[in-house]
Order: sequence, then structure tokens, then C-alpha cells
Amino acid sequence: MRIDLHETAKLLENSDKILLLCHAHPDGDTLGSATALARGLIQKGKKVRVDCSDSIPEDFSFMFEGLESEEFDPELIVAVDVADIKLLGKEYEGIYTGRIDLCIDHHASNMLYADKVCLEPDSASAAEIIYLLLGIMGAEITPQIASCLFTGVSTDTGCFRFSNTTVRTFEIAAQLAKHGADTYNIIQVFFETKTKTYAALERLALDSMRFYFSDKCALICVTQEMFKKAGSDESEVDRLANLPRQVEGVLVGVTMRELKDGNFKASVRTHGDIDASAICKRLGGGGHMGAAGCTLYGPKQTAINSLLKEVQAEIDAFILV
Amino acid sequence: MRIDLHETAKLLENSDKILLLCHAHPDGDTLGSATALARGLIQKGKKVRVDCSDSIPEDFSFMFEGLESEEFDPELIVAVDVADIKLLGKEYEGIYTGRIDLCIDHHASNMLYADKVCLEPDSASAAEIIYLLLGIMGAEITPQIASCLFTGVSTDTGCFRFSNTTVRTFEIAAQLAKHGADTYNIIQVFFETKTKTYAALERLALDSMRFYFSDKCALICVTQEMFKKAGSDESEVDRLANLPRQVEGVLVGVTMRELKDGNFKASVRTHGDIDASAICKRLGGGGHMGAAGCTLYGPKQTAINSLLKEVQAEIDAFILV
Repeated sequence: MRIDLHETAKLLENSDKILLLCHAHPDGDTLGSATALARGLIQKGKKVRVDCSDSIPEDFSFMFEGLESEEFDPELIVAVDVADIKLLGKEYEGIYTGRIDLCIDHHASNMLYADKVCLEPDSASAAEIIYLLLGIMGAEITPQIASCLFTGVSTDTGCFRFSNTTVRTFEIAAQLAKHGADTYNIIQVFFETKTKTYAALERLALDSMRFYFSDKCALICVTQEMFKKAGSDESEVDRLANLPRQVEGVLVGVTMRELKDGNFKASVRTHGDIDASAICKRLGGGGHMGAAGCTLYGPKQTAINSLLKEVQAEIDAFILV
Repeated sequence: MRIDLHETAKLLENSDKILLLCHAHPDGDTLGSATALARGLIQKGKKVRVDCSDSIPEDFSFMFEGLESEEFDPELIVAVDVADIKLLGKEYEGIYTGRIDLCIDHHASNMLYADKVCLEPDSASAAEIIYLLLGIMGAEITPQIASCLFTGVSTDTGCFRFSNTTVRTFEIAAQLAKHGADTYNIIQVFFETKTKTYAALERLALDSMRFYFSDKCALICVTQEMFKKAGSDESEVDRLANLPRQVEGVLVGVTMRELKDGNFKASVRTHGDIDASAICKRLGGGGHMGAAGCTLYGPKQTAINSLLKEVQAEIDAFILV
């Protein structure tokens, strides 16, 4: 059942022991939203635990500072920024299927797997929703909460560059800055700092860029060999995803990375009315209009071809329209 | 004489024919600020002309749409975002030296060459000052004005990434978005779109990156040969300036470009308390704490060495502190 922000606030206020779940391969939005909500709920005297099936990358550890992980049997299990129960990770999917009481999310592709769903697909990030929710709950936006939310707001919009960025995004960013979010350092860490290994990987990735369909599609393919050569690994690949779409005239930017088993993960970013999630859905994946992902089966050329086929279908449909 | 925003508004309101001058090699802030101010003054019934010694790059032409260039003898000559009379360009320097009635600027290094100076060095962009000024003047922030100002606000902060970005920057950005600034397309054009020639130049530039002083300094040197190889030219070099500083551990990022006469222009970007303008001032240039520039005399290795000497002095002083 879909519920609105006020009903969501009430549901949270009526529970005393709340478990907040983040998606696997956690990012700034799922972690920033969950930790900010946790801090707001703790202000209200709740016992709260934030959990994720994967370990928390070092860059996000600041979000958990001073947040004690309490042990309790939850009265309410809440998934934050999790569009599909599968995205909790295999183990957690097994544990929590059928048990999620509430999902707070902004993905239009949400599978509505939770008992109650607070879904705001026009929100650029789950963090925007949590900001509004904390306001309704009358929670104080502390500098720590502001920093957690600003991380979600900025990372899910590519630092205000993606088309999901709205007037409200800028307004909430301004409010978070005013409430003491460490905007400069957050942006430095997530957007303006490249490790030497990432810088090397980026060079190799740019060298691998190929163009298709009269240059309307640009594709990068990062192989295990390239990771090795750069001294880098999969953890550094997410930031490459935006590079192909940046080239003038490109409507569909694809970044593929080779997994250790020889298959590939693809990240698809599109411009304008070309639907990245439609491309990825046909290959078993999903996501948003402008950014989506899927898994492709190797070898490399087979994987590339299967993706390009769907890209072409989408570009053709777009041009016919 | 330094004057505040209210005195500046009064000075503008008391003149009927106003010439607004931008700096040469014009950027988003000087042009966005001048055209926004022009539109606000025209609302008040003034005759206004915006002028620049260099031609207006295509990407900025939207700022001039519907803005008629009126011919008149100005009662008030105003330099906008121009820190030094020399920055008007050689020809205009000759014409306007001693004749600038008012300078509206945010560069701490402003040479105070104008009769009256409205200087706000804490402002990330001249556009922020103009936004406040238009508010004082009671001008309506039309979508066109909002787009001109948003261009200045975003380009002078590297899209909110530089350390000059403040709470007020975010607040003004939110206000401009609310007033109809075309934020998405502006950001796409200035930050998320690379021409194919720029993309090629960037690859060559990244390949040329060298590290000095225990990797605290990263230096890119773009030669005329690289421009030729990439099919690019000097007009595309500005965006490279941020790349060296992005590498983890780098305190001073330098981007040099070879001029046609064999000399070099250097752009210096620093982190934290390292003063880019101090480095460049000692070489005859200037700028801000975090971003400054100067000219260096070739051949290449001589130019690099003369700059590195000053970089080292600044890094040493910083580490001693």
C-alpha cells in the first residue's frame, strides 16, 4: 500500500525499535538517508539500527560516527532507497523477503515488495524524502544529519548535474548547507578527488572509448586486465559511468566492467527522452530514466553486442518519435 | 573609494546611460553578471550597453538574446568582474584607463583602479553580488536574468565544487532555480559536455601529467603539438585546469598551455591554505587564493622550472607553518 509522508512519519513515530536496511553495494544515498533518519529517530527516543549486507566503504564511515548499533528485535523493518528486495543482497533477501514493513524510496521502478511504500519518484534522492520526513517529525537537523543527507543529495544527482535535479534539490541543498553540512569536504571526497589508481584507470577507460550509431552511443569497457594495469579494482569503477555520456552528441553512454567470472556489469546513462531503464530492463536489469544497469554474459564481444542491440532499438524508437 | 551595495544601487539608479564592461577572454561570470545587471537596469528605464574587447563565445550568446546594443555617450562606465584595468584587454585599457566610474567585483586582488569600487571578496562570483544588487534595486528576477546569473554562480564555483562556495552560494542558486534559471542545460553545456576534440585533448593532457615534490604538485603541459593532434585549440583549455588538483594528495595543480609565440600561460589551482595567487603574483600574475594564473617564458622546460620554483617555495612555507 502506498502511503504519504505524513502517514510514514506516523508509522515511524508509533514504533520504538526500528531496523533500517540499506541496499547492497551501498552508496551515498542509501547510507546517508538511513543514517540521517536513524539520528532523527534517536532524537525521538527510539532504538534504531542501520544495517547493510555489505561492509561500509571507508568514505562513508563518518555517517556512522556516534551512532551505536543497538541489538533488539525490531518492531518495524524499513528499507531505505531499496527498489527491489533483491537489492538487499542475496543473504538479506533470504532473511527479509515478506518481512519489510515499510520502504522509503525514490525509484520509479520500485517493485512494491514492502507492506507499506512511501515512494516519491520525482525526488532526485531518497535523502530529499528523508529531509522532508524529518521536518514533519519535528526532528532537529543537526550538522551530522545535514552532512549525511547532503551526501545523498549530491551523490545521487552527480553533484547537481543530472536531470533529476530540481528546484527542490537546490532548496534542500541550501537548507542542509545552512544547517552545517560539510558541503565542501563531501564534494571533495566524492567528486573532486581521484586516487592515483583511479586516475590511471580513467586514462585507460578513456582510451577504450568507442562510438556507435553515428556517434550517438559511446561505450567504455573496463577489463580485469585494465584494473590490474592501473592497480585499481571494481570499487573505483562507478565514477567512470558518467564519462561516455559527456561527449557531445552522445545520447547513450555505456560503461561496462568485466567481473572476475568473465561476465560484465553495464551502467547505462542517457540524455533527454531516451530511457536507460527500458534498455536495461530488457536485459534483466533496471533503474531510472537517465541511469540504469544490468548484467551481461561474456565473452566481451558477445556482451557488447547484446547491449548494443537494445541501445539501437531505443535510439531508433526515439528518432522515429 | 569603496562603496557598499546600497550606495552602488543608488549610483546606478542615478544614471540614465550606463556602459557595462566585461573582462577580455570573457567567462560565464563577467558576461552573466553584466547581462543580468543590464536587464535589471533596462527594467528601470535605463539605456544600457554591455561591451567586451573580445568576441562573445557561442556558448554565452543566449545571455544577449533580446538585449539590444544601444549607442549612446555613457554617463556611467562600470566594470563588472574586472580585477585590473589591464584585464579589459589592451585596446580597451587604452580607451578606459582613468575613466571607470564604478567597479563591481569579487576578486580580493582587485587593483582599485575605478573611482568607486563595490568589492565583496567573500562572494564566490560577481553574479552573487549582482543578485543582491538587483534585490536592493527591486528588479524582477526574470528567467533570463536567473539563467545569466546561474551561469556566473555555477561556472565560478566549478559547479559548487570549489572552496569559494558558501551557504549563500547554495541559497542564491536555489533562488535562481526557483525564478526559472535553466539550470540543467546551463550545467550540461558548461560542465557535462565535452566536444570530441576536447575529449581527445583531455586524454593527451592526462597522459602528460607529471608529479613533483613528493606528489604534492601535479603538472599538465599542453603544447601546440597536442592542440594539433587533438584538433583542438586554446579555447578548450580552460576546463583542463581542474584536473591536476583532483589527484589525491596533490596540493598544487598546474595546467600550462603553450602559446603560439612559444611562451606559456599557467593556471594554478591549490587546496586548503596554499595560496595560488601568491605563487602567480611572484611571476607577474594574480588571482584568488585557490585559483590564479600567470604567463611564463619558454622554452618549455625553462617555463616549467620557473613555475616549480615558486610552487616549491609556497609548499615549503605551508609545511613549515
